[in-house]
Amino acid sequence: MRFHTRKWVKPEDLNANETLFGGKLLAWIDEEAALYSIIQLENNRVVTKYMSEINFMSSARKGDIIEIGIEVVKFGKTSLILNCEVRNKMTREPIITVDNIIMVNLGADGKPTPHGKTEIEFVKDRLDK
Amino acid sequence: MRFHTRKWVKPEDLNANETLFGGKLLAWIDEEAALYSIIQLENNRVVTKYMSEINFMSSARKGDIIEIGIEVVKFGKTSLILNCEVRNKMTREPIITVDNIIMVNLGADGKPTPHGKTEIEFVKDRLDK
Amino acid sequence: MRFHTRKWVKPEDLNANETLFGGKLLAWIDEEAALYSIIQLENNRVVTKYMSEINFMSSARKGDIIEIGIEVVKFGKTSLILNCEVRNKMTREPIITVDNIIMVNLGADGKPTPHGKTEIEFVKDRLDK
Amino acid sequence: MRFHTRKWVKPEDLNANETLFGGKLLAWIDEEAALYSIIQLENNRVVTKYMSEINFMSSARKGDIIEIGIEVVKFGKTSLILNCEVRNKMTREPIITVDNIIMVNLGADGKPTPHGKTEIEFVKDRLDK
Amino acid sequence: MRFHTRKWVKPEDLNANETLFGGKLLAWIDEEAALYSIIQLENNRVVTKYMSEINFMSSARKGDIIEIGIEVVKFGKTSLILNCEVRNKMTREPIITVDNIIMVNLGADGKPTPHGKTEIEFVKDRLDK
Amino acid sequence: MRFHTRKWVKPEDLNANETLFGGKLLAWIDEEAALYSIIQLENNRVVTKYMSEINFMSSARKGDIIEIGIEVVKFGKTSLILNCEVRNKMTREPIITVDNIIMVNLGADGKPTPHGKTEIEFVKDRLDK
Repeated sequence: MRFHTRKWVKPEDLNANETLFGGKLLAWIDEEAALYSIIQLENNRVVTKYMSEINFMSSARKGDIIEIGIEVVKFGKTSLILNCEVRNKMTREPIITVDNIIMVNLGADGKPTPHGKTEIEFVKDRLDK
Repeated sequence: MRFHTRKWVKPEDLNANETLFGGKLLAWIDEEAALYSIIQLENNRVVTKYMSEINFMSSARKGDIIEIGIEVVKFGKTSLILNCEVRNKMTREPIITVDNIIMVNLGADGKPTPHGKTEIEFVKDRLDK
Repeated sequence: MRFHTRKWVKPEDLNANETLFGGKLLAWIDEEAALYSIIQLENNRVVTKYMSEINFMSSARKGDIIEIGIEVVKFGKTSLILNCEVRNKMTREPIITVDNIIMVNLGADGKPTPHGKTEIEFVKDRLDK
Repeated sequence: MRFHTRKWVKPEDLNANETLFGGKLLAWIDEEAALYSIIQLENNRVVTKYMSEINFMSSARKGDIIEIGIEVVKFGKTSLILNCEVRNKMTREPIITVDNIIMVNLGADGKPTPHGKTEIEFVKDRLDK
Repeated sequence: MRFHTRKWVKPEDLNANETLFGGKLLAWIDEEAALYSIIQLENNRVVTKYMSEINFMSSARKGDIIEIGIEVVKFGKTSLILNCEVRNKMTREPIITVDNIIMVNLGADGKPTPHGKTEIEFVKDRLDK
Repeated sequence: MRFHTRKWVKPEDLNANETLFGGKLLAWIDEEAALYSIIQLENNRVVTKYMSEINFMSSARKGDIIEIGIEVVKFGKTSLILNCEVRNKMTREPIITVDNIIMVNLGADGKPTPHGKTEIEFVKDRLDK
């Protein structure tokens, strides 16, 4: 799994108990899944369709740095299935895991449409062509 | 199911495709689940432990009004299991459903602790005592 | 008075004295008045025109849960007059009251236009027709 | 009246009709009243107690620049009464006016306490002493 | 140098060390430079092109009030060069300085275009004409 | 240079001209520099002291994905000097560059203190020890 985006837990990210607000974390995951899919499918019109069960394994506190990892589970015809793990950057302790996030590729009409991709591509390779 | 909190979808809640950002919606659900649990368990130290699979059934657009409904599935010994549905206020079209959200009651030491509740209570009744 | 929307006071809602920032509370009230009016008038183009005097009766602290209540004072021809009370959910202590909030119904041209409503309607009843 | 703080209306400040969200404007006014009072009373513990009726005279659109003016109406014993006007910076068209905003000076115990001020002071003069 | 916009440092503006988050301060400066330029150039399409070196001289804490000062260094043909200082309102201690901020005037085509201004103008004088 | 954190440009990140608000971009850079330094110096108390000149080379639009790269220029005794580049993820077009960002390592007393580091370390290697 490759970990990209990192977040620094600031006061605005805390719940009233002064730990990382779970809703903020879910929003970060959803954003990361969306941008990962946009990059892979080369299409801006990608939406989250489904998330499998979510385990909150540990929390984070103010000042912690977390990182978000994404991995492809499967390329569907009109979808992309991802796996996500968020962990504490300094200790590698897992914070949350989501086994399947299904992202759907939409056409200009807002309907699911085939994306034609079957494997991970790197932007570098596309640009080198 | 009782629907309480309502949200008006504003530009700050949109993703880049100008529909409601899924992460924002998840954050709203998590906040509603937390405050519902705090009210029922009469304890501020409640955390989200688990969410079952999440279906994004339809989206919302700028100017839509949505409402968030919560129902108790079961009172555990140290937990409270909730069911959540978000729908469009004007059309009642479902937007998202989460069958099980497990909230855990924590003690002053941050460890799960029995909450002693077995059924839904209304604040009104508590205050009338 | 019916209380719908609930808010959980989080660190991002506090002023520098660590009590609920009054401006945030006013923003929540304005949003609730707007969405209540949109639902009643079945028109998205509704604007706040006037608020009568506002009494800040008590404050709220981090972790408190508050609820916002709205009641119709009067249906005008192009307006809707509301009454608002915000209170602490757990103690029912009033936090702020606003006796009259005048919302104006606008037409597609942005000018006040008759809304044709004379009494409260429930979305359920509209959908059942 | 002296106008200090200026705001640039950005997408995040808009309501669903793409005009300036009234609640955001009220939050800006409350912040300006608070900081004006803190400066005059030389005390960080100042709270908003009351606002007289609020007239929304015109709105603002994305890209507009607005400025917020504050004037002292009266120095009370434990309070400071302010008058506020918000206007469009480029056209000077008034957007909102609030005749009386009562700010209360609190002591370390959170109770109203005399502030000992009777007239406007400039920070420059205090520092020059 | 004239100081206009004031900010009250609230919990949402802090970094994890509970001092003012530098990034927030930079965002405030960029907004102030943009709106100052829009006012002077009477054009909404103004963008930040360059900032000279930035010195973080001291920090601010929760509850502090800061003010942002802007001065014109030079009117270019398609640009406006500004100088910015942010200081603590109560003590006048400097917090940050930026000697040169180059703002560029854009035409409807998004390209730099002459603004025709050679000196500071006051909105009051324009409206009095 | 290694690029980690990615951002999806959403409506809340735009200025009034509907391009990425420069202030938001500076805030993202400052956060990335801070968390990079915290990881390298293994100390949460790190502050931004200085940024060299900043060139805004191109902008970004709603829906664009950008990535932020950081490189170490030099380990000072109490400081860490970084170089930062932000680029469009899909086209690799540079958006902004900052040659030198000086971060300072603070002790518990808030004063600069030696950090004892002389080269880049990976968290993986630390944990493997």
